[in-house]
Amino acid sequence: MNEPLSRAPVSSADIDAAAGVIAPFAVRTPLLCPPVLCDRVGAKVFLKPEILQRTGSFKFRGAFNKMSSIPQDARKGGVVAFSSGNHAQGVAAAAKILNMPATIVMPADSPLLKRERTKSYGAEVVLYDRDREDREAIAREIAGKRGATLVPPYDDPKVIAGQGTVGREICDDLTALGIAPDIVVAPVSGGGLIAGVATAVKARFPQAMVMSAEPENFDDHARSLRAGKREAHGGKGRSICDALMAAIPGEITFAINGKLLSKGVTASEAEVGHAIAFAFRELKLVVEPGGVVGLAALLAGHIDARGKTIVIVLSGGNVDSDLYARLIG
Amino acid sequence: MNEPLSRAPVSSADIDAAAGVIAPFAVRTPLLCPPVLCDRVGAKVFLKPEILQRTGSFKFRGAFNKMSSIPQDARKGGVVAFSSGNHAQGVAAAAKILNMPATIVMPADSPLLKRERTKSYGAEVVLYDRDREDREAIAREIAGKRGATLVPPYDDPKVIAGQGTVGREICDDLTALGIAPDIVVAPVSGGGLIAGVATAVKARFPQAMVMSAEPENFDDHARSLRAGKREAHGGKGRSICDALMAAIPGEITFAINGKLLSKGVTASEAEVGHAIAFAFRELKLVVEPGGVVGLAALLAGHIDARGKTIVIVLSGGNVDSDLYARLIG
Repeated sequence: MNEPLSRAPVSSADIDAAAGVIAPFAVRTPLLCPPVLCDRVGAKVFLKPEILQRTGSFKFRGAFNKMSSIPQDARKGGVVAFSSGNHAQGVAAAAKILNMPATIVMPADSPLLKRERTKSYGAEVVLYDRDREDREAIAREIAGKRGATLVPPYDDPKVIAGQGTVGREICDDLTALGIAPDIVVAPVSGGGLIAGVATAVKARFPQAMVMSAEPENFDDHARSLRAGKREAHGGKGRSICDALMAAIPGEITFAINGKLLSKGVTASEAEVGHAIAFAFRELKLVVEPGGVVGLAALLAGHIDARGKTIVIVLSGGNVDSDLYARLIG
Repeated sequence: MNEPLSRAPVSSADIDAAAGVIAPFAVRTPLLCPPVLCDRVGAKVFLKPEILQRTGSFKFRGAFNKMSSIPQDARKGGVVAFSSGNHAQGVAAAAKILNMPATIVMPADSPLLKRERTKSYGAEVVLYDRDREDREAIAREIAGKRGATLVPPYDDPKVIAGQGTVGREICDDLTALGIAPDIVVAPVSGGGLIAGVATAVKARFPQAMVMSAEPENFDDHARSLRAGKREAHGGKGRSICDALMAAIPGEITFAINGKLLSKGVTASEAEVGHAIAFAFRELKLVVEPGGVVGLAALLAGHIDARGKTIVIVLSGGNVDSDLYARLIG
């Protein structure tokens, strides 16, 4: 039996469509090029600050695109999602706009700020024990009981297409400047953001290298990209990057990322902390640990960017004030 | 004797010229419109984040425009400036680009970050006692001894024209969106930024109200605008807004501001602290006390903005990490 012609789960046209869907509510974030960062790295460095997105992370894009596709008659059952905090807020904010009830399953040790902000959008928050309970099972049970639609954090074509609008905007802004990127880097957990970004970027700039960035302790993408197949991380199971603690790449996302990504880079916990302090002191941007990991890898010299044009996605800025105070001190 | 026809010290054409001068080196900062802030205030709120400017404040614009006008044969004598910290960095950074030596006279109690950053551009820093010494006299003595050119922090047409590019960019971005502002607010110390901004904004949007914002303890602009003449502040002489501690409006700046500004608003020390925490938590922007005072006045309800379009300049983000940690905690 012949294999069917492989068709990508998400196309550039899907991302164009998502851009239209989210436009009335999502923030069109700018592309920054801070001189202090370019000087430091010896490269043309652009930052895509998704910290400025509605809810403080890119997650609103994918959540809103997915939830807008739920048929009207299924909307009254609401939505359910599991998330360490940023997808939680994205789903909760989208549910408020779309007038749907939302239940979010969050780990009990997720940052307080993320739990409070999720509740502030009117969502019900159900806490679980990260070490002993299965968040997907809890979410599926709630979905079954309430007739709610599950909004997956990454392994879903509509979610990936929504996150891909980040890449589409990067391409639009670079095109307007007459600049082609050599390298594009985004943080990965399940890989939804980078899958969407890579789809958009490779369609417009096929020669660009797209790289995933993750904490040393959760290096499943770096490993999987080296191995050419999905592999779990080799770390110790904890990181200050609370947003990036997926154990293994998603199936749909890796079907995309395995083809489009050049490599995976990592940063240590200390390098992440240093990058947060740098962003505070020099860039005046509040970035959370999981959002800064690409910049951390660049500042630590783990990406060969000298003389090149590199784009780094700062994916989120929802960090507790006590951790932040400790890291910038 | 008849009075001569009064001609404004700075024209809209001067600001256009300054925009051309600073373009190769200044950051073209974006105009943000955070949904969370619009929802909170019940207005269309735009932020002009000059925290993203080279050196972390708008001051680079005026300093570079002024220093670019120094004749070549006078450049080797270098420049001297007095400043609590942001003008210091603006002058130091401009001097480095223009290859001129720079000496900056700073108060001994200015934030450590500002002193360190000023030195990092290669400037010599001379400290003085804010309560017992006259910074202008010290700067003039150095200027005389070294043949250096004094770069005033605000009371200078070239400096005002440079700061006016902030207003010009606001107008350009609003025009592109097809939006006219009802209110434009910027922090004031000596009044250079607001004089430039008002000149640019009133030329393009004559019906817009331009307002100065300052700490309660340094309310000299609010008083002077009410009185129709320059008056000193009525406060106790200290504020966490270290950048806004001028005692009385400038002469040239008030010749402009007395005509173009609608009123002056103030914020208390507590309101400033609250606005910094709001910007951290909700906007993901690092703003220093003196840079956030307009936003503080808005959030505290001191500006009647409901249903209107309002633009707030966030003028700087150079804040020491220990003070910042205390304010966001």
